[in-house]
Amino acid sequence: MDKFMEAAFEEAKKGYEEGGIPIGSVLVHDGKIIGRGHNKRVQKGSVILHGEMDALENAGRLSAKIYQECTLYTTLSPCPMCSGTILLYGIPRVVIAENKTFMGEEELLSSRGVKVLVTHHEGCYQLMQQFIKEKPGLWNEDIGV
Amino acid sequence: MDKFMEAAFEEAKKGYEEGGIPIGSVLVHDGKIIGRGHNKRVQKGSVILHGEMDALENAGRLSAKIYQECTLYTTLSPCPMCSGTILLYGIPRVVIAENKTFMGEEELLSSRGVKVLVTHHEGCYQLMQQFIKEKPGLWNEDIGV
Repeated sequence: MDKFMEAAFEEAKKGYEEGGIPIGSVLVHDGKIIGRGHNKRVQKGSVILHGEMDALENAGRLSAKIYQECTLYTTLSPCPMCSGTILLYGIPRVVIAENKTFMGEEELLSSRGVKVLVTHHEGCYQLMQQFIKEKPGLWNEDIGV
Repeated sequence: MDKFMEAAFEEAKKGYEEGGIPIGSVLVHDGKIIGRGHNKRVQKGSVILHGEMDALENAGRLSAKIYQECTLYTTLSPCPMCSGTILLYGIPRVVIAENKTFMGEEELLSSRGVKVLVTHHEGCYQLMQQFIKEKPGLWNEDIGV
C-alpha cells in the first residue's frame, strides 16, 4: 500500500480514536509529507476543518509554485469545499482511498484538469462504515445533510 | 446600503487595519447575523480562513436546516474554496459586493441553484484596489497565483 495513503489512514484512525470523524489527509511535495491532518469537527468544533483542509492548514502558507507541484492524499472522496480548495490552490493531483461512502466532486475536479486517482482502499471504507453506524447524525452534519 | 453588506464591509476594514487582506463576510439567518469574519491569512497564518470561511467558522456548528435558510454576504466574489463551502452546506443565497477585483465561481454557484446577487459596492472595490496596490504579493498568495 502507498506509504502516503497509509499516513492519511493513520490520521483518519487518530480522528476516530479522538471521537471524531475518521477522515485523514496528507499533502505531499517532492516525495515528502509537508502537511497532515484529520477532520476536527468534534475536536475543535470546526465546520471547515475537514481532513483535507486540516492538512493544508497544517502545511502553512506556501507559494503557488509549491501547491502546483503537490499531490493531496485523502481517505475519502473530497466534498465541494475541499474540492474547491484544491482548485483554488491549483493542486494538480488527488489520490482518494475510496468513494463508496461518499462521492465528492471528482467530476468537477477532472473537468478542471485535476488528475484524480481512486485506490479503493478497504480499510478506509470499513472505518467510515463503522463510524457512520455509530454516529450517523454527526456524519450527516459534516456533509450538510 | 444594505446593513448586512455594511457589516461585511466593516469586517473587511477591520482586516485592513490589522495589516491583513480586506475581505469580510457575514452569515445571516432569519434577519440576524449569526456569524461574521474576515480573511485571517496574515493574522493567523491561515490558508483556509478567507472572509467567508471565517464567518462560517465563527457561526459554529449548525444543522443543515439552518444553513439552508441562510444568506451569505461577502465583500468579494467567492473563490473556488468558499464557493465549494457554500455548496457543501446548501446555502441558497449569496450577496456579493463586487466582482471587478476578482471573479469567483459565480457561474458554478448559479449552475447549482444558488441565487447570486452582485451589488457593485464602490467602497469594497476601492478598499481592495488600495490593498492590492500596497501588497500585490500577499494578494496573489491568497488566490493561489
